Amino acid sequence: MDESLVDEVRERIRKLLDSGQLDEAARALLELHPADRAEAFAAADEDVRARLLPLLGNEATAELLAELPSHLAAETSEPMQADVLSDVLDRMDPDEAADLLGDLPPVRAALVLGEMDRAEDVLPLLHHEDESAGGLMTTAFVAVRRQMTAAEAIDFLRQIGPETETPYYLYVIDRNGKLIGNVGLRDLIVASPDASVETFMDRDVVSVLAGTDQEEVARMFVRYDLAALPVVDAIGVLLGVITYDDVIEVLEEEATEDVLNMGGIEAGTIADRPYWSLSIAQVVRSRFVWLLALFVAETLTGTVLRHFENTLKAVVSLSFFIPLLIGTGGNAGSQTVASIIRALALDEVEPRDLISVLVRELGVGALLGVLLGAVAYGRVLFWGLDSSMALVVAVTILCVCIWANTVGSLVPIVADVVGIDPAVISAPLITTLVDATGLLIYFSVAVLVLHPAS
Amino acid sequence: MDESLVDEVRERIRKLLDSGQLDEAARALLELHPADRAEAFAAADEDVRARLLPLLGNEATAELLAELPSHLAAETSEPMQADVLSDVLDRMDPDEAADLLGDLPPVRAALVLGEMDRAEDVLPLLHHEDESAGGLMTTAFVAVRRQMTAAEAIDFLRQIGPETETPYYLYVIDRNGKLIGNVGLRDLIVASPDASVETFMDRDVVSVLAGTDQEEVARMFVRYDLAALPVVDAIGVLLGVITYDDVIEVLEEEATEDVLNMGGIEAGTIADRPYWSLSIAQVVRSRFVWLLALFVAETLTGTVLRHFENTLKAVVSLSFFIPLLIGTGGNAGSQTVASIIRALALDEVEPRDLISVLVRELGVGALLGVLLGAVAYGRVLFWGLDSSMALVVAVTILCVCIWANTVGSLVPIVADVVGIDPAVISAPLITTLVDATGLLIYFSVAVLVLHPAS
Repeated sequence: MDESLVDEVRERIRKLLDSGQLDEAARALLELHPADRAEAFAAADEDVRARLLPLLGNEATAELLAELPSHLAAETSEPMQADVLSDVLDRMDPDEAADLLGDLPPVRAALVLGEMDRAEDVLPLLHHEDESAGGLMTTAFVAVRRQMTAAEAIDFLRQIGPETETPYYLYVIDRNGKLIGNVGLRDLIVASPDASVETFMDRDVVSVLAGTDQEEVARMFVRYDLAALPVVDAIGVLLGVITYDDVIEVLEEEATEDVLNMGGIEAGTIADRPYWSLSIAQVVRSRFVWLLALFVAETLTGTVLRHFENTLKAVVSLSFFIPLLIGTGGNAGSQTVASIIRALALDEVEPRDLISVLVRELGVGALLGVLLGAVAYGRVLFWGLDSSMALVVAVTILCVCIWANTVGSLVPIVADVVGIDPAVISAPLITTLVDATGLLIYFSVAVLVLHPAS
Repeated sequence: MDESLVDEVRERIRKLLDSGQLDEAARALLELHPADRAEAFAAADEDVRARLLPLLGNEATAELLAELPSHLAAETSEPMQADVLSDVLDRMDPDEAADLLGDLPPVRAALVLGEMDRAEDVLPLLHHEDESAGGLMTTAFVAVRRQMTAAEAIDFLRQIGPETETPYYLYVIDRNGKLIGNVGLRDLIVASPDASVETFMDRDVVSVLAGTDQEEVARMFVRYDLAALPVVDAIGVLLGVITYDDVIEVLEEEATEDVLNMGGIEAGTIADRPYWSLSIAQVVRSRFVWLLALFVAETLTGTVLRHFENTLKAVVSLSFFIPLLIGTGGNAGSQTVASIIRALALDEVEPRDLISVLVRELGVGALLGVLLGAVAYGRVLFWGLDSSMALVVAVTILCVCIWANTVGSLVPIVADVVGIDPAVISAPLITTLVDATGLLIYFSVAVLVLHPAS
């Protein structure tokens, strides 16, 4: 179904819901892809959702809960009877069922789990951290023993095939459950029917420990172009498989976390939970510490200005350009830090390139400083101030641009060297670092050029 | 091979290269996964790379060129003879060969293409924009006619199988080449051998036009959990297939583009080309326009200050807190804009939530303002200034936090409504918007509380 048709159906559903024709709306919902269905469902009011849900049937409800954002899935499942919910969970992929169970109150989760037919697939997944390889994996994979022939493996797949989420590979294990190889479906088809799996399996399988962080998992998928990644325990026993679709979700999340960091909010805390799931007090807590730290650092600017109090009294027009100068320094620094963070993330720049990066960014800063300094010179004259003041502002702009580009290149690279993710270096941090030194430069130049009475 | 082993081999290669044992180094390189091999190769000096390349053989060179960053792949292929390079390109996936050919000088590209055996697979890929669906797709897919039986299709796969990059689906086309369905390998295995493909194919295939932007393609993969996406022309003829691994790369690129935007560099221009591939002049050009726009906007702060020149002369200590106040406003605004951009990207917030977002962010701003205002009050007293000055600063902090949170929520949501990607709203933009108004608030409060002689 193409995009315009999807839009049409969604519009129809909205109208049906508005006019209270829930049966019709439910039927139209079932025409949509589960992802589109979940979006249309989420857009409805809470009471409409509650009345709509029983009309969908357990299979469609399972698809719906898998697609909804986690807080909405938990909320939607709340009014469901335990036996209905357990049947719905049985129809979901084990990793998605485990995610939902993890969001329920523990007593209810235990009750529902007790009524599930496939509880044994889901139970092992509940012990892993959400953001680890174990938390991403599913237990719905196909494992075969090495002696099995290609024909037997194909027969085996015919019997169990439709249940599994990872149809691209069979995993080959030894008698202790240790992973010893994998077989692509294509290899299975191409192999001679009598050949045993171990004769054509790929022995050089990339695998990952269950405790590995999800960012590392995502990096391995990107690096090695993987479709699926087996998860093992410390002695190599196969525990589960992570598929590319879960990793695409991780990449989406990580990308938006980088934006949080860049804006000066520490990601990896409650700050990256869904927007509406946090109370105002929680949001304030997640932003306050960082804001306070920047605030305290920023009071340094007051110290600098107090130091030059007499200069300011003598030439009060010096204060007109304070926001312009520190603003420009902050902006130039933010641009530099953003391009260095990007270059580090894409492996275009490495810590050992520090000197070449500095040379380059100094050049960029000097050029930008000359251009903006010229503009500033004109602007100051235009305001009717004298040319020595224009010179002070222009020279300061030049120095501040060079200094901001230096700080903006140094800080993320040094962070990388000492093992801090450069993506946590925010634009506000750079701005704050540059502010006080920018003022020092400004007043030093002013004292040199203007020789104010003190 | 696990991570520590990979590190060991890389260390060994570095030592072998340093001591000039190129044959040994080439052998060790071949032990590595192509992705690791490319990294080790890229880390060597230019002249070492030139001498190492002929020792690798054409197959490994093909893998290497596919994994290297595009500018380095083009550079590496430069000294190769046209007939060697054409043989290497024949061993690469058609989409990767096309990417490399696109980076060569046109005359050389034509020469090399003319010597390739599989030129007809690569040629159609050269006409598409790099960042479109056509630019991402490969022509190495398997298409079958609807009358083919499952057994015939499996036989067909046995013959051509190993050459193709998209082993997960067969695409079913009609006599005009139009896409009418697809068949998963699993369905093929599970189907009765005599059944014709059209009886068990999936007719509801998601496909995309060749001109579709790569960001939209990535969104479809994320939304519909796709492993592969067929690309068609305007009348539905199957042109190629995009696989999940190409999309994972797009997601990585887009994520780092968002960081550029947030730092105040317009992505989607030359600014997102590889860091070292740009000259300093190009970097300056990509940053200057935006920096100049912010600079001009920031001169507004000077106008505000000139307007309050007499107030400043009367109470020169007012100027001590200018950087602190506008810095705090900018930081609070950056935090807000970052969390709203994230919430919009993850569909947690939609434009119609504008009022609820504003109410929420006003609450957050007010609370943060009260907390920081209290800290500021103490800080001003600590500097030995009087309590009316402390009051002015504290009240301004409160107002500025509320105002910054309002601007930080409004701007990205309004951008989304008028069809601008909210991710281009940068922290510097918000900072600049808040600066001049922050000063207006400050001096208005000061005039009210301090009644300075004017």
